[in-house]
Amino acid sequence: MIQINDTYSHTFRFTQAEVVRFAALTGDENPLHLDKDYAATTIFKQPIMHGFLGASVFSKVFGMLFPGEGTIYLKQSMDFLRPMLIETDYEATFEIKEIDSEKHRATVSTSITDKTTGKQVIKGEALVMHPTKL
Amino acid sequence: MIQINDTYSHTFRFTQAEVVRFAALTGDENPLHLDKDYAATTIFKQPIMHGFLGASVFSKVFGMLFPGEGTIYLKQSMDFLRPMLIETDYEATFEIKEIDSEKHRATVSTSITDKTTGKQVIKGEALVMHPTKL
Repeated sequence: MIQINDTYSHTFRFTQAEVVRFAALTGDENPLHLDKDYAATTIFKQPIMHGFLGASVFSKVFGMLFPGEGTIYLKQSMDFLRPMLIETDYEATFEIKEIDSEKHRATVSTSITDKTTGKQVIKGEALVMHPTKL
Repeated sequence: MIQINDTYSHTFRFTQAEVVRFAALTGDENPLHLDKDYAATTIFKQPIMHGFLGASVFSKVFGMLFPGEGTIYLKQSMDFLRPMLIETDYEATFEIKEIDSEKHRATVSTSITDKTTGKQVIKGEALVMHPTKL
């Protein structure tokens, strides 16, 4: 059983090719994510990842790893604090803040940090349900 | 310029093949999204889309359509109210709730509704910035 204050972390990175595939799949072909010359004219100076691609690590971890198979995703908030860059190692961290054991639900703080600089790029909170682990 | 109470809507659908591509790209290979036989054993009875794939329409619309190019995404919350199904028409709707014209920011209510049943499947709120349209 998962307990209050339990934590989990997961390291990940995305390539430019994956950003291109995400753009095609979702239809979000904003040139900020795809075009180096265009991105150079923006405040970001270089192509940045879609926030939704970066934050999809929350869905991956909840569905596959922590709590894992059988998790039902009820809520997620995301503050996009800083741009996420391609070919950069990020760490997603999770901490169980509250558990409602009658409803099998947990409130989880979710965060993504640049592994090199230690700076937080996305913060948020999730509500998940798991019939046996919560 | 975008004004308070302005609305926008956008119809979309995803196929099973797109769900498979999203799973491979994000690493979220939860069988609930991919395996018909497994999904039949769950409360959903059939494969459902990743909530993050459905909600990615918010990113697409903000980046491409409303406000469009130049939008900077600051926050998004999502309540996954009901499962989203493949090969089903959904409508994403947006309404401008507040504008901070000094900071060029808008708070936007975001919603996804099943076009056939009229039932809301995701609701949330976004904070976006656009240097000239807000």
